[in-house]
Amino acid sequence: MARLAVVLMILFAAVPQALLAAGAQPDHPRLPTCSATAAAAPDAAAPTQELGNGGGGGSRIVDITHAMRPELPVMGSAAGVGPLLRLKKSMANGSRSNLSELRMSAHTGTHVDAPGHMWQRHFDAGFDVDTLDLELLNGPALLVDVPRDTNITAEVMKSLNIPRGVRRVLFRTLNTDKRLMWQKESDLSFVGFTEGGAQWLVDHTDIKLVGVDYLSVSSYDYLISGHVVFSKSREIVIVESLKLDDVEAGMYMLHCLPLRLVGAEGSPVRCILIK
Amino acid sequence: MARLAVVLMILFAAVPQALLAAGAQPDHPRLPTCSATAAAAPDAAAPTQELGNGGGGGSRIVDITHAMRPELPVMGSAAGVGPLLRLKKSMANGSRSNLSELRMSAHTGTHVDAPGHMWQRHFDAGFDVDTLDLELLNGPALLVDVPRDTNITAEVMKSLNIPRGVRRVLFRTLNTDKRLMWQKESDLSFVGFTEGGAQWLVDHTDIKLVGVDYLSVSSYDYLISGHVVFSKSREIVIVESLKLDDVEAGMYMLHCLPLRLVGAEGSPVRCILIK
Repeated sequence: MARLAVVLMILFAAVPQALLAAGAQPDHPRLPTCSATAAAAPDAAAPTQELGNGGGGGSRIVDITHAMRPELPVMGSAAGVGPLLRLKKSMANGSRSNLSELRMSAHTGTHVDAPGHMWQRHFDAGFDVDTLDLELLNGPALLVDVPRDTNITAEVMKSLNIPRGVRRVLFRTLNTDKRLMWQKESDLSFVGFTEGGAQWLVDHTDIKLVGVDYLSVSSYDYLISGHVVFSKSREIVIVESLKLDDVEAGMYMLHCLPLRLVGAEGSPVRCILIK
Repeated sequence: MARLAVVLMILFAAVPQALLAAGAQPDHPRLPTCSATAAAAPDAAAPTQELGNGGGGGSRIVDITHAMRPELPVMGSAAGVGPLLRLKKSMANGSRSNLSELRMSAHTGTHVDAPGHMWQRHFDAGFDVDTLDLELLNGPALLVDVPRDTNITAEVMKSLNIPRGVRRVLFRTLNTDKRLMWQKESDLSFVGFTEGGAQWLVDHTDIKLVGVDYLSVSSYDYLISGHVVFSKSREIVIVESLKLDDVEAGMYMLHCLPLRLVGAEGSPVRCILIK
């Protein structure tokens, strides 16, 4: 029986388009469309000029990370994050090499939250960004469009019909349409999870990586309570401020690699999707 | 003829063990052993409890990144890199969240060099770390042991018999055996490429990503000249201070994701190998 379930899951993985389409609500025209071409694993059968399995040229990689610019928004500020780099050694001034120093909040630009960000108990216990599970941060992920006229509530989560077994979901929202990440002044009307939406995800899905397209996983009204719901069990990784413009919804291989900042409750992260 | 070459390369990729073993010198007992189990692509046929191709549990991922600790060595210093984090907002002090600030050189711990690090012309032209090719930073890579009694000279490079078509190589050296990255005081007797070894790699291989296990890709006597050879064409990515302990030599899928530090000549990077 368990074996049958596994077989069904593999079949399911092979035809996500048909199944998700069957589950889609007609009033949400931008629900996930998982095309067969967006298979997660590189095509080992494709001709390649490169040695080693799974390699290959072409533009298979989609960068979903915002560039680190002084104009990146920061919650509740009109000034942006400000200067992030300082050239400490300069060849133009006689040094043998150029050497920059970086200085920034651990939550600058595209970043991950660790459990200790809003749970003091987890912070005290050392659940820092270096304890996040690399197996979760690297694997198949679903990029999904959510309805544009609402926060991500329990009702919205239910309507998305995300199948059990999906562990990583990137939620594209109105924030992307409004290009909020390109505005230096933060916009507190951004959308995100409500507390109820977060709780529904925890209770009714297998999602353990939650990605969003603005500064916070939860909307401003639920800024703390939404985070708290996600981080309580320490099982869920939150990825914020993803750049989800101009990518087709569907299944990809996701790679998110934060820095190993021992003791930090978050880290800037580079995230890519591989078709 | 070109098609035949491609077919041969694919065949070659399928049996790296036999071919590399044939090319190995008996006096270099730790030359690469590319086992069939170290295939780069995830096994889509394996049973999985997870939706999406190529996923799966187990400990497929090997972290080859050093944790960011104040005791990490810095070239020419006995003091280490020093404090890297400061808790700017603390829940223990009444803030609604914990928030760390990071401050470090762009070449702290495991990191990549961009062409502008030691070429002012490339720096002026804007070839910063954000211009590094993600296709190069993500793909099949060979982890190889080099002889322990020498720098990586032209002769050593020749003896390694790394086949054409291999684009990413991580060189494990005596530095790993000596655990130099765990010593706060830098050790300038570290081994690395000589200028001649770097030039041989450029002239006689297809390697475009060069990874090493200490602070510099080139040994101290060739600190600048080695970098200059590698970075001249802007085609080669240098990854330094990798943690290559306790990993079998062989082929892996490599993922190295630096931060998008616009204007910087380097960046801390998280690198992983997937079996």
